[in-house]
Amino acid sequence: MEEREISQAVIGRLPRYFRYLGELKDEGVERISSQDLSHLMKVTASQIRQDFNNFGGFGQQGYGYNVEYLYNEIGKILGLDKQHRFIIVGAGNLGRALGNYINFEKRGFIFCGIFDVDPTLMGREVRGIKIMPVDCMEQFIRENEIDIAVLTIPKAGAVAVAEKLVQNGIRAIWNFAHVDLNVPDGIQVENVHLSDSLMKLSYNISNNSNTQK
Amino acid sequence: MEEREISQAVIGRLPRYFRYLGELKDEGVERISSQDLSHLMKVTASQIRQDFNNFGGFGQQGYGYNVEYLYNEIGKILGLDKQHRFIIVGAGNLGRALGNYINFEKRGFIFCGIFDVDPTLMGREVRGIKIMPVDCMEQFIRENEIDIAVLTIPKAGAVAVAEKLVQNGIRAIWNFAHVDLNVPDGIQVENVHLSDSLMKLSYNISNNSNTQK
Repeated sequence: MEEREISQAVIGRLPRYFRYLGELKDEGVERISSQDLSHLMKVTASQIRQDFNNFGGFGQQGYGYNVEYLYNEIGKILGLDKQHRFIIVGAGNLGRALGNYINFEKRGFIFCGIFDVDPTLMGREVRGIKIMPVDCMEQFIRENEIDIAVLTIPKAGAVAVAEKLVQNGIRAIWNFAHVDLNVPDGIQVENVHLSDSLMKLSYNISNNSNTQK
Repeated sequence: MEEREISQAVIGRLPRYFRYLGELKDEGVERISSQDLSHLMKVTASQIRQDFNNFGGFGQQGYGYNVEYLYNEIGKILGLDKQHRFIIVGAGNLGRALGNYINFEKRGFIFCGIFDVDPTLMGREVRGIKIMPVDCMEQFIRENEIDIAVLTIPKAGAVAVAEKLVQNGIRAIWNFAHVDLNVPDGIQVENVHLSDSLMKLSYNISNNSNTQK
């Protein structure tokens, strides 16, 4: 792997390549040209080659890419060959939905704990794990080597909770709270602002743009 | 409003402006300079001015922007002054979580119906609305003037369901299914591929990049 900085735009496209290659692999396709991949994914072949060149190119263009090799290599680049242990903070509908989403486990994301402030939720289970009071969260993170926190709480408490997460060793926050977090350098944040996404859709309906994301 | 095409990158930033301006408005702030907004939002003042220039600029730079005016104008651009009626297809955990997310209503998105294939879910309610069999979906869309469908089903059925949605008059799909949809021109799709987002986080942990999205 090269050490130089890869742009977040390229990184943002890797999961989609991984997804398409996984499907090709499952269909038994062994090799694919950048042209065919381009056609399938509706991006230019030149973009694909440029993106892959960030990681050394993954093999000869004329001969096409070996699908399984490419799938595995992109998986490794994405860190999917390692395990990540995560907790969910906020056991409302969205938090419970994410806890129940079994596909994450396939990618090496291990659901370890779920926390909430609401006493009426205590003892309820999400995929076999009892919802715990948020007071126990800090100790739990330290004792269970948690890497990732999924933040599914209202925006009011999110900034303060994010600080606690970072103080206790969390390296990455998957943020569904409707607020931008301010974290130290080296802590990763990936925002999923659902309302923002819905507003973008609203704009595109209102303006009847033909552009698809 | 101007007729020329605005880039999806600019549109993608509008909800975030709207969110910050809403908070400023709630805090009683009446005017803000592009410099102060820049500092708050951690984007350059030049980017803000460029973005706003796509819509006529929203007032003098030296004097600063009128917060409430700007908030309302961006809301109108986003189409939030209109009502949109939506259904949810897929009443699993995520579908029910989105149905229960009351904030959408504040933005003019009216939750009208929720559908599933699973007979054991029939009769269960999501925010006062009974889950209906997916066989009733097409008629329901036509009879209830539904604009938007939220797709929260596994990828296997998603492409076929999307076709039915479009045939019955849906104008926009908020797609949580883990597959890219292929829809006719003029139909808007906004993808929320949660696994892609989590993989991006995984990459950034593994490579310990300091870049925040």
